[in-house]
Amino acid sequence: MFGRARTGLLKRFNLLGRGCVAAAMLGMMVVGAPGQQAVLNVMPLPSNAQMRDGALSVDANFSVALTGYSEARLERAVTRFRQELARQTGLVWKREAPAVAKTEATKTETAKAASGTPAASGATLTVHTEHASAAIQELGENESYTLEVSASGATLTAETPLGTMHGLQTFLQLVAVTPQGFAAPAVTIQDKPRFPWRGLMIDSGRHFMPMEILKRNIDGLEAVKMNVFHWHLSENQGFRIESKKFPRLQELGSDGLYYTQEEVRELIEYARDRGIRVVPEFDVPGHSTAWLVGYPELGSGPGPYEIERKWGIFDPAFDPTNEKTYKFLNEFFGEMAKLFPDHFFHVGGDEVNGKEWDANPKIQSFIKANALQNDAGLQAYFNKKLQAIIAKHGKSMVGWDEVLTPDLPKDIVIQSWRGQDSLAAAAKQGFRGILSNGYYLDLGWSAARHYAVDPTSGAAATLAPVESARILGGESCMWSEYVNAENVDSRIWPRNAAIAERLWSPQSVTDVASMYARMDAESARLEWLGLTHRTYYRQMLQRIAGHLATPQEVAALRELADVLEPVKDYAREQSATNEPTSGTALNRVVDAVALESGAARRFNELVDKYLAAGCKDDDSANELRAQLIRWRDNDPAIESLAQKSFLVKEVVPVSQDLATLGKIGVFAMDYLILGSQPPAAWRTDQSALLTDVSKPKAQLLLVPVAGVQKLVSATGGATSCGVK
Amino acid sequence: MFGRARTGLLKRFNLLGRGCVAAAMLGMMVVGAPGQQAVLNVMPLPSNAQMRDGALSVDANFSVALTGYSEARLERAVTRFRQELARQTGLVWKREAPAVAKTEATKTETAKAASGTPAASGATLTVHTEHASAAIQELGENESYTLEVSASGATLTAETPLGTMHGLQTFLQLVAVTPQGFAAPAVTIQDKPRFPWRGLMIDSGRHFMPMEILKRNIDGLEAVKMNVFHWHLSENQGFRIESKKFPRLQELGSDGLYYTQEEVRELIEYARDRGIRVVPEFDVPGHSTAWLVGYPELGSGPGPYEIERKWGIFDPAFDPTNEKTYKFLNEFFGEMAKLFPDHFFHVGGDEVNGKEWDANPKIQSFIKANALQNDAGLQAYFNKKLQAIIAKHGKSMVGWDEVLTPDLPKDIVIQSWRGQDSLAAAAKQGFRGILSNGYYLDLGWSAARHYAVDPTSGAAATLAPVESARILGGESCMWSEYVNAENVDSRIWPRNAAIAERLWSPQSVTDVASMYARMDAESARLEWLGLTHRTYYRQMLQRIAGHLATPQEVAALRELADVLEPVKDYAREQSATNEPTSGTALNRVVDAVALESGAARRFNELVDKYLAAGCKDDDSANELRAQLIRWRDNDPAIESLAQKSFLVKEVVPVSQDLATLGKIGVFAMDYLILGSQPPAAWRTDQSALLTDVSKPKAQLLLVPVAGVQKLVSATGGATSCGVK
Repeated sequence: MFGRARTGLLKRFNLLGRGCVAAAMLGMMVVGAPGQQAVLNVMPLPSNAQMRDGALSVDANFSVALTGYSEARLERAVTRFRQELARQTGLVWKREAPAVAKTEATKTETAKAASGTPAASGATLTVHTEHASAAIQELGENESYTLEVSASGATLTAETPLGTMHGLQTFLQLVAVTPQGFAAPAVTIQDKPRFPWRGLMIDSGRHFMPMEILKRNIDGLEAVKMNVFHWHLSENQGFRIESKKFPRLQELGSDGLYYTQEEVRELIEYARDRGIRVVPEFDVPGHSTAWLVGYPELGSGPGPYEIERKWGIFDPAFDPTNEKTYKFLNEFFGEMAKLFPDHFFHVGGDEVNGKEWDANPKIQSFIKANALQNDAGLQAYFNKKLQAIIAKHGKSMVGWDEVLTPDLPKDIVIQSWRGQDSLAAAAKQGFRGILSNGYYLDLGWSAARHYAVDPTSGAAATLAPVESARILGGESCMWSEYVNAENVDSRIWPRNAAIAERLWSPQSVTDVASMYARMDAESARLEWLGLTHRTYYRQMLQRIAGHLATPQEVAALRELADVLEPVKDYAREQSATNEPTSGTALNRVVDAVALESGAARRFNELVDKYLAAGCKDDDSANELRAQLIRWRDNDPAIESLAQKSFLVKEVVPVSQDLATLGKIGVFAMDYLILGSQPPAAWRTDQSALLTDVSKPKAQLLLVPVAGVQKLVSATGGATSCGVK
Repeated sequence: MFGRARTGLLKRFNLLGRGCVAAAMLGMMVVGAPGQQAVLNVMPLPSNAQMRDGALSVDANFSVALTGYSEARLERAVTRFRQELARQTGLVWKREAPAVAKTEATKTETAKAASGTPAASGATLTVHTEHASAAIQELGENESYTLEVSASGATLTAETPLGTMHGLQTFLQLVAVTPQGFAAPAVTIQDKPRFPWRGLMIDSGRHFMPMEILKRNIDGLEAVKMNVFHWHLSENQGFRIESKKFPRLQELGSDGLYYTQEEVRELIEYARDRGIRVVPEFDVPGHSTAWLVGYPELGSGPGPYEIERKWGIFDPAFDPTNEKTYKFLNEFFGEMAKLFPDHFFHVGGDEVNGKEWDANPKIQSFIKANALQNDAGLQAYFNKKLQAIIAKHGKSMVGWDEVLTPDLPKDIVIQSWRGQDSLAAAAKQGFRGILSNGYYLDLGWSAARHYAVDPTSGAAATLAPVESARILGGESCMWSEYVNAENVDSRIWPRNAAIAERLWSPQSVTDVASMYARMDAESARLEWLGLTHRTYYRQMLQRIAGHLATPQEVAALRELADVLEPVKDYAREQSATNEPTSGTALNRVVDAVALESGAARRFNELVDKYLAAGCKDDDSANELRAQLIRWRDNDPAIESLAQKSFLVKEVVPVSQDLATLGKIGVFAMDYLILGSQPPAAWRTDQSALLTDVSKPKAQLLLVPVAGVQKLVSATGGATSCGVK
């Protein structure tokens, strides 16, 4: 049934060549009944795809065969693939079908693997891998794959297991429910990543993140083809890993919340099984209070030190003039370099405020004696010695922008929180870099805004090819001041899928509507992996409402919360009435609502659609008006609930704003539907009210204000609306 | 703020003495703003409670002290309690407060524990335990506790850790969100169970249930004070436990889905930590195909045997005339008796159809030679030998009704699927029994219907006290033909809480409205334990709708599914178009909807309320009419979705029925609101239509039909409605 409304002609879209138009065409193919649009459910979008007619049925007889090169990891990948496909469909595989069917070809194929033609296996999906990938996963390995799906079967071929695993994820995304059963559409996909470094950083320092959370997020990374998990393991608020050489690090610096070395090895293994490198970060010389609690003699101040309970930048820093510092770091990094096999080793290096250095006469004398000029010079001195330590242990150093000093060796990598210009400057000097500016998930940006950030835009767009190639990719960052085990999934997903697409798909893939359609689909699919980015929400709202709430009251709370977002960027710190700490409960409405409201986005999109149609689209008008009426009438239930719960009480002003918004919107719709213009003063008055309701309250933003403002403006008749 | 609207007088309700009126009064206390009713959120309801004014604030400074007898299990229980309280409130405990504060009293108190007066500890909650419970938890141990909560602190005292753990659960249930923060109302509770055996059986045989599912359900049992987990480990469709003596049992009889002995020990330890005994069941001589796959020589037929893939009663049975059978069972039960420490050992014994025995001349000769008369006589012979084996291994035998033979020793226990009369007959003969008839969770009964089943009703009500005391309690049963890892939680919870209350609370506690109010609250709370009985639902509906569905379509599917229930009792087998097997996907709407629809129950209750008010309750009228309009207008989105998903297509007739129901209901409401009577023919016509829509379709029932029928009938003016 796929392609029922299609012409039968083979269509080829080379996304690299055609740009966003081709992407949009591929992203939106007509399937099913006439008039129904559906998306090619693949995210990130492949670099090249050819749609064909027909579809491959997926039922209980579905089988997989591995041919060519094989290894235990591939067999586990296929087992996992079958489990995920079962969860996604609810199908129970026939007992007769072994988890991994090996054909005769497997045993003899390896020699002639270069032919690239897998032997016919009789399985529904034949998976052919050419050869092994590196024993320790390396930057820039071949991750490409080709996936051919036809009505009679599917073939996945890849150079290495990395490509194979990506192709399996693509297949999972293709499988959809149809009127006849589950099926994957006939398609040929040739796919490879744009950037070799596509990562997510999770801050386990400020709020500890239990193992199970890291694991399910690594499952999420695999699903969207990211290949680096950057593990931020030390912070002022906690040192989160067991050191056997320096046990006071975790004993005194973690409140008992740290990962054992056994757990670390388990997680690295888990990630490797999913084609994901694990890059640890140990932030020095700043962001280091928690280290110094156990080893105050390494600090630049008099000590003693205590774990920080507040957020922000703190004074404690290692003493770069003390040779014991280097002895300690050499031994500790040596221990960690053995534990973490990856070639890259992140040493942080950001945000040293220099206060302890300035206050320490010994350090100031050292700066003078060694002609280091100032604190920046001292940090450069530190970095150089640090780099030698990291290199001695066989690793390449990664650091934030601040570590960059021209005389460092060119194998270091800069992670830029400053932006593309900073990356470009580094690239010109011969340094490699990855972008994180624009990918901070904690700032609450929309997926579209993250999606628009390209690592090679700005100054980076003007680089020569050899320089541009030094931009390795990017990493989204989940800083955890306002994130804990309960809501962290929702702060990462689904928006991280948009960043993953930016880093994988061709630069020309920029269609936002297509991105959102596929992101919504992927968001639903990610739940089968165990991610709780949607389920946490109702549970938190239930807690906020309390068990004395009626179902109607809980529904009203949800109606309100559905269109709210937390204030953006760093406004939460700035608007706090009590200074937040690591002991602050994250149980408020601001902690429960999504960072990007899907309901509000869809409302605002519907407004645009309605206005673009000259207010002549009755279905949209009815839907908008019904929604606005629900908002207008929602407040009484919230007021009632506020009598029972202090957590609801604080959002009463926002609820009243929603009622105002609904009321204004209904009036505007009535004018637009009737085609009559209100007096100009009405628009002025409503706009003033809208300005008022757009102000954050309880650290929350009412997102549909933008759409309602457009409706109000449209009543002026400036568009073809308002006058019929 | 608790008790704000109260008189300040101390009120005492002895539920044992006052019956259901007192229970209803306790269950519904006025708290919060005037006009708002709230429930005492304790389930099962305690045997005795005295409400006082005031409340104990629960904030980040909350602390717990253990005094009196202590042990590692109690410390773990307190740690878990603190974790659960944190999940339930979102609070972050002050770092300064150790997980378990031990006062000076702890060290010296044990000697004078008999005084029963815990030392003042300064903690928010002081927990005092008198002495240890049995090393291996025994039937009938003291499980009582006393919990006193005042504005200044709380004290929990219990004879044994079993009572302590129950009291901690009660405290967790008392904590609620209030206008000022989280708090527990001031109350004194003296509580103890009515029955000593309060269990849940899970059938791991027909569908394997992974460890994590069993664990979270054991957490659920602890929450509602059940104390037995009955683990059904062998079935025709699977032998689910590792035997080291007879490894072919699991190797050939389980499809690889079995529990290792290490996992079994882990689960027993986990249950013991929560005051729960684990009783294993190994069903013989019938229900045993999976055993015979590996050991066909023990069967009564010629073999070979294969794991059953269908449901029902099958022919294979052990050969009771073969001495090898007893040698095997003696060795195997010996192995299992060591693994499971509990004193009780369940051998099944149900539903032997006798076909293999009848067809085997050797067995028939044996029956004649030993004057056993028939198959029943042969099974009695088998049971007697079996009982001797069980007794030899130091256990008491438990079996279903069929095992009962008068000459068996009196220490055996009958689990009755037949009912109270069967239990009473056994009790009169001196046998102990537990009730499961009426507690089969898979039959889809309402919580109210389970709640009405009392182990000592029927013939059991006429027993002499000494006989009645032989009725030890009951067990709910989760048979798993149509239940898998995905939806099993929803088939057990929240209804199991009603059965737990029946077995714990005084017999006089029977108020259904109070039960439902507290069950709804407990259902929300159970989510913090990790139970997925609510979260699975949206995920299954999303799969059914598919990722191409619009949010409106998914909402419409939910509107429909919310008021559907699967057909009851054994109607699912009877109405199946394809014979269901263990390979049948459980991914249909019938697998997703709750076994008892909360939305439909509330609708039907609202109809009753509206009619009881003589149709003069405008708020109810508006709410009913709005709901009916949503149902009337819901079908177009379902029809659209059915074009995309075969899983939706099958419920189109049900969706059309819902539209019909809504249409009829809106008309009826309009008559009632206007106070005008329709022609009598209208009522006749609508009732005929309602009879039609009440017929199951796609194995689903449209539950609000009952309420709409009442509205239609009311238009006849027989009540005070319909004529104003």
